[in-house]
Amino acid sequence: MDDGQEKLCPCPVARGLDLVGDRWSMLVLRDIERGMTRFDQLRMSMGIAPNILSSRLAALTAAGLLEKSRYSERPPRFEYILTDAGRDFIPILAAIGAWGAKHRGGGALTRMVDVQTGLDVEPVVIDAVSGAPIGTRPLTLVTPE
Amino acid sequence: MDDGQEKLCPCPVARGLDLVGDRWSMLVLRDIERGMTRFDQLRMSMGIAPNILSSRLAALTAAGLLEKSRYSERPPRFEYILTDAGRDFIPILAAIGAWGAKHRGGGALTRMVDVQTGLDVEPVVIDAVSGAPIGTRPLTLVTPE
Repeated sequence: MDDGQEKLCPCPVARGLDLVGDRWSMLVLRDIERGMTRFDQLRMSMGIAPNILSSRLAALTAAGLLEKSRYSERPPRFEYILTDAGRDFIPILAAIGAWGAKHRGGGALTRMVDVQTGLDVEPVVIDAVSGAPIGTRPLTLVTPE
Repeated sequence: MDDGQEKLCPCPVARGLDLVGDRWSMLVLRDIERGMTRFDQLRMSMGIAPNILSSRLAALTAAGLLEKSRYSERPPRFEYILTDAGRDFIPILAAIGAWGAKHRGGGALTRMVDVQTGLDVEPVVIDAVSGAPIGTRPLTLVTPE
């Protein structure tokens, strides 16, 4: 990953999407989070062409969201695990899931449940400073000079 | 949009990404949210090829995230406005921005500021039921039978 600052756009949304702004990349993160850490597991779960999966895994690894880890010496076999940056993206997938359930609901849906309470999770993006859900208070963007 | 339930995958994340799972689509929503509602504004803001922008605007409109609105009769001119579903996606972009700033920071960054308090917003995805940030409590996925 090239971190040369002079090339970076000032928008943090664009920066984030530079690393993971693609449907397949996000679904890869989703599946690895739920334990499908091996190439064939991912390929079958997503019904994705092997070359596309390879390119997404390589890009996510280069971007620092995944680490490639050898789980068998002979024959050499690898799995992919989330880095801290990759794990940090998972709550965003939860928010996308809540949005998808709300705006493209209907039929059977996978639910995310809190293990201790047994209650369905309701992901909401809030501002940790005010405690208010984003979108309920006036916000403005301040661009660098 | 085809809402035939039998074709829908049970994963709400995949469903959400079916509608908006592409870097350009998300950046279109970002720019329309900040007032760039016209084709040429979007094209220049993003440095996007006109045919790609056209296809993304058509797809987002078909998916129910945008509405095309005529702002001039003669010559006929259109702008794009967010629907409720489109507006609902904006907090997710805020979360992606927070992730991008954290994991691809460095250099000048646009900041999101609360107008009333003047404080920087810190987007976090929480579970509205428990109040806990997603990722801080054990969660599990329950798939339909």
